[in-house]
Formats: sequence, C-alpha cells, structure tokens
Amino acid sequence: MKQSSETLTSMSSVKEAFIQPFPNSHKIYVEGSRADIQVPMREITLTETIGDLAEKNDPIHVYDTSGVYTDPNVAIDLRKGLSNIRDQWIDERQDTQTLEGMSSTFSNERLDDAELDALRFEFLKTPRRAKDGKNVTQMYYARQGIITPEMEYIAIRENCKWQDYKDQIGQQKGESFGADIPEIITAEFVRSEVARGRAVIPANINHPETEPMIIGRNFMVKINGNIGNSALGSSIEEEVDKMVWGIRWGADTIMDLSTGKNIHETREWIIRNSPVPIGTVPIYQALEKVNGVAEDLTWEVFRDTLIEQAEQGVDYFTIHAGVRLQHVPLTIDRITGIVSRGGSIMAKWCLAHHTESFIYTHFEDICKIMKQYDITFSLGDGLRPGCIADANDAAQFGELETLGELTKIAWKHDVQTFIEGPGHVPMQMIKENMDKQLEECGEAPFYTLGPLTTDIAPGYDHITSAIGAAQIGWYGCAMLCYVTPKEHLGLPNQDDVKEGIIAYKIAAHAADLAKGHPGAQIRDNALSKARFEFRWEDQFNLGLDPDTARKYHDETMPKQAAKTSHFCSMCGPKFCSMKITQEIKTMDAAEIAKINAIQVEMDQKSVEFLANDSEIYMKEES
Amino acid sequence: MKQSSETLTSMSSVKEAFIQPFPNSHKIYVEGSRADIQVPMREITLTETIGDLAEKNDPIHVYDTSGVYTDPNVAIDLRKGLSNIRDQWIDERQDTQTLEGMSSTFSNERLDDAELDALRFEFLKTPRRAKDGKNVTQMYYARQGIITPEMEYIAIRENCKWQDYKDQIGQQKGESFGADIPEIITAEFVRSEVARGRAVIPANINHPETEPMIIGRNFMVKINGNIGNSALGSSIEEEVDKMVWGIRWGADTIMDLSTGKNIHETREWIIRNSPVPIGTVPIYQALEKVNGVAEDLTWEVFRDTLIEQAEQGVDYFTIHAGVRLQHVPLTIDRITGIVSRGGSIMAKWCLAHHTESFIYTHFEDICKIMKQYDITFSLGDGLRPGCIADANDAAQFGELETLGELTKIAWKHDVQTFIEGPGHVPMQMIKENMDKQLEECGEAPFYTLGPLTTDIAPGYDHITSAIGAAQIGWYGCAMLCYVTPKEHLGLPNQDDVKEGIIAYKIAAHAADLAKGHPGAQIRDNALSKARFEFRWEDQFNLGLDPDTARKYHDETMPKQAAKTSHFCSMCGPKFCSMKITQEIKTMDAAEIAKINAIQVEMDQKSVEFLANDSEIYMKEES
Repeated sequence: MKQSSETLTSMSSVKEAFIQPFPNSHKIYVEGSRADIQVPMREITLTETIGDLAEKNDPIHVYDTSGVYTDPNVAIDLRKGLSNIRDQWIDERQDTQTLEGMSSTFSNERLDDAELDALRFEFLKTPRRAKDGKNVTQMYYARQGIITPEMEYIAIRENCKWQDYKDQIGQQKGESFGADIPEIITAEFVRSEVARGRAVIPANINHPETEPMIIGRNFMVKINGNIGNSALGSSIEEEVDKMVWGIRWGADTIMDLSTGKNIHETREWIIRNSPVPIGTVPIYQALEKVNGVAEDLTWEVFRDTLIEQAEQGVDYFTIHAGVRLQHVPLTIDRITGIVSRGGSIMAKWCLAHHTESFIYTHFEDICKIMKQYDITFSLGDGLRPGCIADANDAAQFGELETLGELTKIAWKHDVQTFIEGPGHVPMQMIKENMDKQLEECGEAPFYTLGPLTTDIAPGYDHITSAIGAAQIGWYGCAMLCYVTPKEHLGLPNQDDVKEGIIAYKIAAHAADLAKGHPGAQIRDNALSKARFEFRWEDQFNLGLDPDTARKYHDETMPKQAAKTSHFCSMCGPKFCSMKITQEIKTMDAAEIAKINAIQVEMDQKSVEFLANDSEIYMKEES
Repeated sequence: MKQSSETLTSMSSVKEAFIQPFPNSHKIYVEGSRADIQVPMREITLTETIGDLAEKNDPIHVYDTSGVYTDPNVAIDLRKGLSNIRDQWIDERQDTQTLEGMSSTFSNERLDDAELDALRFEFLKTPRRAKDGKNVTQMYYARQGIITPEMEYIAIRENCKWQDYKDQIGQQKGESFGADIPEIITAEFVRSEVARGRAVIPANINHPETEPMIIGRNFMVKINGNIGNSALGSSIEEEVDKMVWGIRWGADTIMDLSTGKNIHETREWIIRNSPVPIGTVPIYQALEKVNGVAEDLTWEVFRDTLIEQAEQGVDYFTIHAGVRLQHVPLTIDRITGIVSRGGSIMAKWCLAHHTESFIYTHFEDICKIMKQYDITFSLGDGLRPGCIADANDAAQFGELETLGELTKIAWKHDVQTFIEGPGHVPMQMIKENMDKQLEECGEAPFYTLGPLTTDIAPGYDHITSAIGAAQIGWYGCAMLCYVTPKEHLGLPNQDDVKEGIIAYKIAAHAADLAKGHPGAQIRDNALSKARFEFRWEDQFNLGLDPDTARKYHDETMPKQAAKTSHFCSMCGPKFCSMKITQEIKTMDAAEIAKINAIQVEMDQKSVEFLANDSEIYMKEES
C-alpha cells in the first residue's frame, strides 16, 4: 500500500481550482490589539446599481474558512505546511515545554521505519506539552479571567465587520430558544462563554497553524466536513486535497476519519496544512493497531494513540466514553442496532470482556492528557439512532445522560467539551434532542450529524439531513457535521465533498437567520438587492457557490451581454416580473400620492355604501 | 417559431428511460367497489434476509404518480394520448353536456389556422361543460353527501395498502398541529374533507385522463413540478418529456407555466398525456394575447382565456385575485418588490388604470366558469416575498386576508379552492404563515413555493427551499411547489426537474413522518432494515431514486459481488459497524441474560459503595 515518493513530490503544489480567489473577492485581514492578530475575511466587491435607482453598493464581508489558500500573496507549499500563527501566543504563556521527541511508542516506530520516508511529511515539528502541573486549555485561561489572543481573534472574526451595516443589524426578529447572542461579540464575551463551558475553541498547542474559531450556540453555527481514506481507497494526496477543497467551500473544522494504511502519515500532512481545527476518532486507529479485533483493544494501546495524535496536533478527539455495558442490551430491538463505528467497537469490547468500557473507567486519565495539549473532547454518540424508527430511544438517551456526567468531569479539569448527537431523527423529535442535550450536559455545545429526517433517499442524504441540520441549528446546535450525497453508499469524492459542504452552509446560515444572529441577514439582503437590480455578477459572487450559479445561468443565456440584461430565461425579454416592479418602484411621489388618494376615496365610498346599505336594510326591517 | 411536423411525429414514442419500470418494482392495480376503479400502486419486491437472521421480507407498496408510463402492459402513444378513465363516471352523473365546439374565440382562431396543423394534437376532444344551472364540482357532490368514484379511488390510493403492515401503523408519535389523519382513509372521510373545504380534488371534466388525487392536510403531502417554455427556449416535445419525467419521480401535479409561442398547442399535448392534474396561470397567456402590455389586459381577454383553458382540461387555475390596488404601495419599501409574475402584471394594471383589479371585481364571474368545468382555484400569492427581508410583511399578509375573503366566495359557489403561499421566509417566520393561512382561509389547503429559508445560495435553491418546505409541510401545508437548482438563474432541464422533484419528495415525506401520518414510516423501516442487513439491492430499490443510489455505490465498489458483501467502502471489509452490531444481535439469550446479571451486580456494587462511602463520610463528621 506504500505510495510512491513521486506522488508526494507533486503535492508541493495545489490544484489551481483550489486556490483561485473567489470572483470579485479578495482577502482582507483585520488587525487586533496587537500586530500579530490578523483576522482574515473575504471582501466581496459589488458593482454599482445603474438606471433610475443608481447608487454605489458597499462591499460585503464574509467569514472565511479557506486560510491562505485563497490569498494570492502567499506562496503555497504543501511540503512545508502553513506558518505557525499561534506560536508566539503559546510561547508567551510560558506554560509549555518543547519535548525532545515524540512520547508515543507508535510514533517513534513509524519515525524509525525508513520505508516510510517517502511518505513522511518532511518538516516534522518537535512536540509541545504543558509544563508539569500546568493546564494549557483555553477553558483554564478563561476561568482565570485571561483573554487570550485566540479569544480576541475570534471576537473580530465573528463580528465579520457587520458594524459597517448598522442599519441592518438584527433586522429580522429571531426565535433563539434561550440562546443569547449580543449585537457585538467582544473578546470578553468569548472568554465568558468558554469559561461557562457554553463554547469551545479547539486549538491544540501542537497545531499552531490554526486560525482560531469558536463553537457555541451564541456564535455563528459551524459546520464540519469529514475526510479520510479507508482500506479500499484514497491516497494521502487525495485526502489533503479534500481538506483544502472542503475549507474553500466553508468547512469550519475537518475530521480525519481515516481507517486504512498510513493513518499516521496522512494525518501529519493534513494537520500541517490545515488552517482549521482537525478532529479525529482515535479508537479507529487504535483498532488498526490490534489488527481490527475489537476485543484486543487495551487502555495502553488507546492511551498511546491519544498521545501520538495529541503530539501531532489534533484539536479535538471523538471519545465514545458514553457507551457503557449497561446500554448495549438496550439496542437489541432496534432496526439498525448500533451504527456508530466507535460505538460498535466499544459495545463489542464491553460484551467480550463482560465489563465496563475502559474508556469510561479511564475517563479522568484521558482528561489529564487532554489538558496537557488543550485538546477538546467531542464526546461521541456511539448509540445514535441509525434510522427513524430508532430515534430518541432508551439507548440513545441513556448514553446522553452518561455524556452529561462526563462533561462535568471534563469541566472539573477545565477540559473543553462538546457533545455529539444524532443521526436519524424525524422532525418532530429533533427539538427533544436539543433540549435534553442542553439540560443533561450543562449547555455544552452540541454537534450533530444531520439529523437525517427520513431514511428513504440514499443518494440524497445531504438533503434529508440538511433539513434536520437547519432545524437543530436553529434550536441551538453549535456545529453541524456534514453529510454527503454518498452517505450510506460509499466514500465521497471531491464533488460530493463540495455538495455536502454547500448543503450544510445553507443549513447553518438558515439557522443563523432563524436565531436572529445580528448580522446574518446582511448577505441575504445584498444578494437579493443585486437580484432585484439585475446585477447578475453580484448575484453570483455573493452566493455560496459563484461558479455553479454562473454556470447554470450561462446554460440558457451564455452571452456576456445577458449578464447585464433585465431578464433571465425564466421569463424572457418582454416579460419579467422584476422589471415590472422596478417600474412601479421608480414612480414619482406624485403618482404614489395619487394612488393613496384613490384608495382613500374608494374606502370612503365603501364606508358610504355600507352606511346606505345598512340604512336600506333597516328600512326593510321596519 | 413553428416546429416542424417531423419533430412532433417523433413524439409518438417516449424515451426508454422515461418508461422503464423501476427495478424490482411492478405496477399493481387495487380494484374498488366497481371494476372501473383501478387504483395504481408500485409494488417493490424485496429479497430474503440471509444468515442468522434469515427471513422473507414482504413487498412494500408506494404511492405511484407515474401513470401507465411505467406499466409495460400499456402501449404508449403520445399522439393519441392516455385513455379516459373518468369518462364513464362523468357520464353517469348526467350533469354535463358535450358542446358542439370550442366556446373560446381564441381556441377557434387557433383551430382555423392551417399553419398550426403540424403542431396540433391530432385527436382533439369535443369539450364538455355543465348543463345549464348544474354545478359539477367535487365539492358540490361532497356537500350533497355524494361519494364519487373519484373519492373512493383516492381513499384506496391514500391508504397505499398500509393495512398489510398493521404493526407499523402510527409507529412514531407525530405532532400534527391540529391536522387529524385517521388510521384508515375511507371514501366518506375523503368526501367530508372536500365538503368542508379542507381538501380539493383537482379534476376538470375535460381532463378525464387524470388519476384522481387529493390535496389536503389530512392526507399525504403532495408536490407540484413546474414545466413550461419561455420565449427563449424549449419545444413542445421537451415540455411533454419534462411532464412524463416529472411524474416518474413523483410529481403529484404539474403546472404548465409556458409564456412563449404556441402555448395553446403545448398545453393540449401535455393535458392529453398527463395522468396528473395540470395547473396553469391563465394571466400569462392573456398577457401574450395583448402583446405583453399589461395595461392592455381586459376582462374579456382574460375570460376568453379561462374558457379556452377550461375546455382543454386544465384542472386548476392560479388566479391572482388578491392583488388589489390598495396593496401595491405596501411593496414600495421592499428589497425585491413584487416578484410574482402574475402579481406584478396585476399591480401594473391596477396602477395604470388607477382602479381595482378586474380579476378581483369579476371574481364571482370567474367562480361561475370554474363550477361549470370543476376547475379548482389556486388563489395566487401575487405579493409573496421575494427575499428574506420582505417576508411576512403588510403586503403579503394584506393579500392573504383578501384571499381569505375570496375563499369564502368561492365556497359559496361550491368551487374547490386552495391558497398559494411564499416564497422566501426565514425558518422562524414559517409557522406564522401556516397559522395565518389556516385562520384567514377557513382551513382551505395551503400550497407553498418552498419557502426558501435563505437567499444566499443561487444554484442550490432546491435545498434552501426543501428545508422550508419540509417544515411548512409538517405544520400543515398540503402541497409543496418544487424549486429546482436553476431557480433565479434559468429554465430547468431534465436533470434539474429530477433534482427538484426528489428534493421535494424528501421534504413531503419528512413532513408526513413528522405529522405522524399513519403508514409513512413503513418505507423508512423497510429501507433501514435492508441497510442493516446489507441487502444492497433492496436498499437501492426502496429509495426515491434507485438509479442514483446504485450509481454512487458502484463508483467505489463496482463489482456485482459487493452488493451482497457485508461492508461498504466507507469502512472496508474488516471494519464495519453494522457487521459488529449484527454479531451483537445474534448473541443467544443466555449471553444477554449474563450481561444483565453483570449489570445488576455492578449496580449493586455501586449501591454498596455509595452506602459505605456515606458511612465513612458520616463517621468523619461525627
């Protein structure tokens, strides 16, 4: 399964399509209180409105997950990785030590294996770890009252220059189900939310390349994209490509779910080149180490895997600590039993050994590792329902209650924690999930896969699940794990990754609007104004996917001239409702006054008529 | 713009892909109380479960909109049209007359134009109309206590043989927001809902080819697919193709929104070949007749258009009678003004003439036409919001109130009526739309376009709107008008039509599940069981789109053998969560008893521990 070195040499460059700036867009950096806080945003430049309603249109700023890949001023070299924007901040805190080498046995074995040289990321870093007795989590700092540069960065990022559009802030009243989003996000607000456990900043000290981001229900809803090879396919290069492609379209975090060969090396390449937090499910790799035999898993193997990945820089770990022996029989009558990979591994282990899960019994040991690197818990929902019929059952909610207990233990260690959720849930049962999660888990952020609202559309599960994702995002879910059209059917390719990301950007944004997130509607308004004014290019460029919008438009009206035409192919040149409305809108004040006068006159007549009418009526009665 | 006769000759046949039965499916007909009530359903045959859990799996029956196109026993000839399954029923009622010719001036002009011969549908029917003084609407019959064959047909169709799966009826508790769906739909229930105005059966007496269907919130949620050429493109043949293609994937009704040349002839071809109700927006054609100049529209031109289309067999008319002069100035401050084509035409007309809309003032005259043919009102929402910012405003709700008044007038004439709704609405404002519609319009069925829950994704509006459609369907919306990926950008092609239909089948089904529609979950359960048991073929075949599911699967695992393998490419052969769960499920009773015993023991220990612990605690205290 070894890849040729030739393949990896070609990795220095990225496909042109992956690093093109978006049309009429350029990256700006907003500086914070210190020069090394440079928060990226995408500025979309708009054309002028022409004709009777002529005016300039201010540029729009959008949250930008794409990293320096869309900055033409930065030379991309995948072999070298990204620059370490957080190194200085970590250093200044003086609570970490640089180790002499990797602490994991497995990492060292891989390093010593010359056969892997060709695959290996060349510029390996020496790992950092907390100094003895130190806690280096953002939650720890937050609880000490410290505002870190990461927190300030996030505050600027979440505000997204919305104050430039003051008249549009909070335009539509939302229904936020208890979330409480301020009009301006301050660094202090970020700190307080992290301290409270209501938000997390996944930021391993060994992943200084991350552009800090936050997950919590009082911030914009985030989305995760999964990548990862399996025994059946996909090379390191493809996975790095998928990561770059995924963040281009808006993935806020990436989970590397690899289960095949060379997991360790693949992960290194991904992390070194990722400006977004990377999550993993360490049990997958631990299982590989025991040749796929779940019963053979041990705490020692698992622990070494956690340290291996911690020192590579993984930002959050999915840990299925809530799958306890007592929950397993609760799944017997399900239609689809246990569908989570991690959940089924642990269920099998518990049954084979007839004892409590070693992840559950070692949970505090895991906390101690997490806080040495600032890795965030993503407490896995190993018993999530795999179909509509299994939603919200005793197994699922039993595990959720356990996750609630574990959250409190993690918080005792100041370890940042969020909670994974379902899965497959019909619409009427979604809110119960959200409410129960908030209650059981002390408002720790919820992170759900979909949920899929029906099982009958394999090939379209990005849609079945975007429906559920939008709803649960509205109800308070902080991050939505994308589902691609290939869910249940196979491994997503590049197109599927994009389809999944766009569907989830839609769900997340629809949720932000519904919650009344203060500035969320600015982009909708700008796009709709462009649409109304037939500024076709602006309409494309303000959309989530300018390429597809332009392509679709050009299929029926390919000529460049059409882009400034006052019609689209839906209606044709003579017949366009927006054109007619534009005419109405440009009527002068005198004309409008006249209409209102007519209306008053008509209403008056109506009143008179009714008066006469009732008079007649009364006469007849008498 | 004339099409060659050659083109239309080729229309006798339908593309092979359009008439292939679905894999492992065949059409069955369930007979009613008389031999000519033959209700079509699709029966999906399933394979046996193999291995430890071996068993046979009963076939599943699904609602089938595809007409005889998927019945290999019926020869399709588009030039001849479909057979007239309702002729006998209409005759028996003895309340209609066969006219000597078309009553519309325009129809006769077209008929007399020899240049159109090549385009014309060959086997034109002589139109029917109610005998003088008769009312031929299904609502009239219903209110007389008459159960028509159409009503009995619908009852059988809606039950979908669900009684074969009694143990799964009403499995998940839904939240139906006041809808009241019985476990078995009887013909009497259909009658009572139609009499009450809570459901409609669009069934023009001049469209005897229709397979009766019902739209109402106590029935399955329906979807509409739009087709229609414009001045810029698309031939008659393409539009008929789109109709056949649309119903194949599940369109319950088709709206022909043509605005280009040969609208009359195109419509004839579509109706004669459509087994589903056809809706139109007559004002589009009326506008063509006055050369696109809205001000030149008159009641006479409009009336002639209504009669022209009535006698062709259009089943429902979108009538924008709610756009009144007084509403127009309410749209001035909108971002996107009036986006409905019909709405903007009428607004322009009102302004030009400074008077009330002629459609509004002639509403009772229109009712008199409708009841002579049994055409259903689709009261158009001419002032629907065109963007998030304009949702639920005074213009929209002002029109809705007018539609409520008009509904009561239509019902006075026993004319079946449903109400069109938005548009673009953020999630938190959707329920208000549904609630207000039910209240204002006396629970007449609601029929919405989407709504789109965000404006920022041109190219993906099938998804932005499926999110809103699923929600409003759950809240009580009876029919969802599909949106294709090309919405706002251009005319949908065949692929777009399919994408739109599938997205809306998902939304409608998710809504049926959420409402707790008694048998909706049977298909989800069957598919999930197939998925759990690795019956790949059954999983594909039970899905909304077996072709795409199979194609996606085969992209990563093309070999036929893989379809019976116990893994998919997501996990690979050694590592599959479903496989592990299957092992758990097949444990014998003794093993499960053992686990439970262990759990009891552990719980006991825990109790003892706590007891000891508190003892210690108390000792220390003392």
